[in-house]
Amino acid sequence: MAHEKEAFEGVEWRIRVADGSSEVPVPDIGLARKFWLRTKGLISCLGLNVRMFLKKAWDVGANDPRKVIHCFKVGLALTLVSLFYFMRPLYDGVGGNAIWALMTVVLVFEPNVGATLYKCLNRMFATFLAGFLALGVHWIASRSGDRFEPFVVGASVFLLASMATFSRFIPSVKSLFDYGAMVFILTFSFVAVSGYRVEKLFDFAHQRISTIFIGTSLCILVIILVCPIWCGQELHGLTVSNMDKLAHSLQGCVTQYFTNINGDDKKMLGYKCVLSSKASEDSMANFARWEPSHGRFNFRHPWKQYQKIGASMRSCAYSIEALNSCINKENKAAESIKKHFSTSCLKVSSSSSSAIRELAQTVKEMKKSPTVFMFIGEMNKAVEELQNDLKSLSQLLDLSTTAENKEYETPLLEATGSVPFMEIVPVVTLAFILIEIAVRTEALVGSVEELAKLADFATHDGNSKKSEMKDKIVPNEEKPEGTLEALQSV
Amino acid sequence: MAHEKEAFEGVEWRIRVADGSSEVPVPDIGLARKFWLRTKGLISCLGLNVRMFLKKAWDVGANDPRKVIHCFKVGLALTLVSLFYFMRPLYDGVGGNAIWALMTVVLVFEPNVGATLYKCLNRMFATFLAGFLALGVHWIASRSGDRFEPFVVGASVFLLASMATFSRFIPSVKSLFDYGAMVFILTFSFVAVSGYRVEKLFDFAHQRISTIFIGTSLCILVIILVCPIWCGQELHGLTVSNMDKLAHSLQGCVTQYFTNINGDDKKMLGYKCVLSSKASEDSMANFARWEPSHGRFNFRHPWKQYQKIGASMRSCAYSIEALNSCINKENKAAESIKKHFSTSCLKVSSSSSSAIRELAQTVKEMKKSPTVFMFIGEMNKAVEELQNDLKSLSQLLDLSTTAENKEYETPLLEATGSVPFMEIVPVVTLAFILIEIAVRTEALVGSVEELAKLADFATHDGNSKKSEMKDKIVPNEEKPEGTLEALQSV
Repeated sequence: MAHEKEAFEGVEWRIRVADGSSEVPVPDIGLARKFWLRTKGLISCLGLNVRMFLKKAWDVGANDPRKVIHCFKVGLALTLVSLFYFMRPLYDGVGGNAIWALMTVVLVFEPNVGATLYKCLNRMFATFLAGFLALGVHWIASRSGDRFEPFVVGASVFLLASMATFSRFIPSVKSLFDYGAMVFILTFSFVAVSGYRVEKLFDFAHQRISTIFIGTSLCILVIILVCPIWCGQELHGLTVSNMDKLAHSLQGCVTQYFTNINGDDKKMLGYKCVLSSKASEDSMANFARWEPSHGRFNFRHPWKQYQKIGASMRSCAYSIEALNSCINKENKAAESIKKHFSTSCLKVSSSSSSAIRELAQTVKEMKKSPTVFMFIGEMNKAVEELQNDLKSLSQLLDLSTTAENKEYETPLLEATGSVPFMEIVPVVTLAFILIEIAVRTEALVGSVEELAKLADFATHDGNSKKSEMKDKIVPNEEKPEGTLEALQSV
Repeated sequence: MAHEKEAFEGVEWRIRVADGSSEVPVPDIGLARKFWLRTKGLISCLGLNVRMFLKKAWDVGANDPRKVIHCFKVGLALTLVSLFYFMRPLYDGVGGNAIWALMTVVLVFEPNVGATLYKCLNRMFATFLAGFLALGVHWIASRSGDRFEPFVVGASVFLLASMATFSRFIPSVKSLFDYGAMVFILTFSFVAVSGYRVEKLFDFAHQRISTIFIGTSLCILVIILVCPIWCGQELHGLTVSNMDKLAHSLQGCVTQYFTNINGDDKKMLGYKCVLSSKASEDSMANFARWEPSHGRFNFRHPWKQYQKIGASMRSCAYSIEALNSCINKENKAAESIKKHFSTSCLKVSSSSSSAIRELAQTVKEMKKSPTVFMFIGEMNKAVEELQNDLKSLSQLLDLSTTAENKEYETPLLEATGSVPFMEIVPVVTLAFILIEIAVRTEALVGSVEELAKLADFATHDGNSKKSEMKDKIVPNEEKPEGTLEALQSV
């Protein structure tokens, strides 16, 4: 429809030009036609919006089909719990309170196992506790006489609801029992207040507890048995992919700077994902501890250590951000100085990104890798080289050089002869930041080592695995080597 | 109790030493005594934990008394809604379905107005929509015969619940109607499935809608009338305080580096708050748009611009992080080089932090400030000076200096005579990062300007306000000037 409209306007415009006069055909259009045109425009606009919305929705599903599966799981759980309405014996069994089972399913069903278990266990525990407390309060209230009963119940609701609400602000309670505190308030006030009107309060509380038990059990069964998404596994995967992104960004930035070969921009900005992943890491680590042993993860897998690894990765990402801003600066660097530093800088970046990639592999396979330390050794050697390059630049530039260094200086002198200092600064800054990145990479290695110790990662057994490892590293190593050679041949 | 335990252990140890023998009194202790000691230890440990927990809880309340007020508001709202149980006419009015009003209060009451309104409006809208849809489905199902009725209802629940769940994954729906989608599923499945058992379904749906209306209205009244916490105001305040923190960190780091006077470490690390405030900014901006006009904010206040300002601030904070890592490096910088750069670096940091502080003031008072541009002008001048300092360092170090520059060089030469290049690098890097920070400060000014335009900030009227402004700036300016003088007199 949008096409039609455009075509119409195009025609109108052409008519005017062909005439050469100022008589425009617009006033000829009647009110009805105007209305029709406007409606048509509105509909086409709406159609376009709807189409864009559907496109977006399709993308969401196509990018992560597990989301679609989750939706069907919710539908399945709800249909199953509806059986309590459709089947007479089941309906009579819960005394017509099937609504609580239905509500439980809607409220506790989350996309992943950890969050669902957290909510289910919180809901069960809080319902039990609140139910018993409310029965106690009702017993006291019913003994205080008809006149005081509402006041006793009202005061207890006010006090306990306030206290439970306050507990949700305390960090240690919030991380473990936030949802439980809400359910506690709900059940307590519900049962306590109902006591004033409902005759058989004990049956009432018992029914609420049993229907909630049915609802939560059903949720747990569906979430675990039908294509489960484990929070721990997600966190594990996120950590691995973030490490890969970091490594790619680091190597990409430095390689592009020194070789002027443009890389994939989207991949090079991968470090930005690392910068913004704190919130999701925290919530995943929080939910993952509710999950039972699954796959390669035990019940007490050290999920908190993943948060520490995340912090180390972010600290690397901050430095890569600084590196990137230094590379994108308008201040151009002198080619000769770039050439002076390129070998050592490329070595530092390639060895530290290889180390990070190897760490990603370590975490992914949950196997300690001796190769990491090889890369770290290489990296430290490269950092030393870089520091020597910085020193040799100083020998070249420093007026107070002693006579014995003159020999070494001469070839560099030719290259840097008349370079303005401002064109040296960006490269020196870059080198300095690279050294900082090397330090932070070592810290990252430390936190992954800590994880390996806590989670008891397997060790590689001698030769066979080592050679397999070597084969695997080659493709990663090839790239920088290739670019290095390309650079040296220029 | 912890004290007692320590005292006991202390005494035991002293007895052994006094004896000088290896006869320890431990084996003499009987089983009962052992049990008593262990129990005592456990109790004292528990007591300590409880005391620490209470201390933490007290701190939460003392740091933000509004949280305590919020808890009492929840209690108040629940007690008010309980009146529907305690007063016969009210209870009969809603046909015994007062439970929905109670549930609504527990589920939608949030600490701030925006989040509560978001949930209330979502709940009302979704309940209406789902209620009508469910009545329609029930009408169709009841006409399809007894045998097919459960299948029609079951299929509709499965389909609509799946679709509504999927819609929660689409970002534009999630930001506006996440809670609404959940309530839609709940109400739809509830009313549709109940249709199979409940005789007067229309009355049932009508009661659910009216009780939810009562609950939400009560929540809105309590949240707005009793000490309201406006999300918009919070976001506004967070933005202002984050800017102040940025300014303080920037100035603090640079001043401490060049003057060796230790500042307040906690304040200097304030930029870390800026790094981690994205999630809260996003959620606040999301809720703030539900809030009606309040204080100085209109209904359509450009809250999204605050997110952009936040992004600009984070970009500054990344650079400050780089600055900090550069300052804390073990590589010591030469004092003479530090002295060479100190004046211009301190000027850049003080003028850009003054500019940021002035921006904070602009946002806080919602008044455009001409002084910001004065500071930005100063900053740019200082950046030029810094660049000149870098160039003069180059003239000093560069071998290819021409004869006419020699005069200017001589005094610097004396200072830097025999400095190793590695001791120059940290300062050069710092200078380079400072220049980057100046660029990012200008970007921050740009985003605040955009906010001023969108939110129609008042302009300062000529002289009176300007002089008032000047008085205000003096304290900010005094500090760096003072440290500068202190440095120069060294």
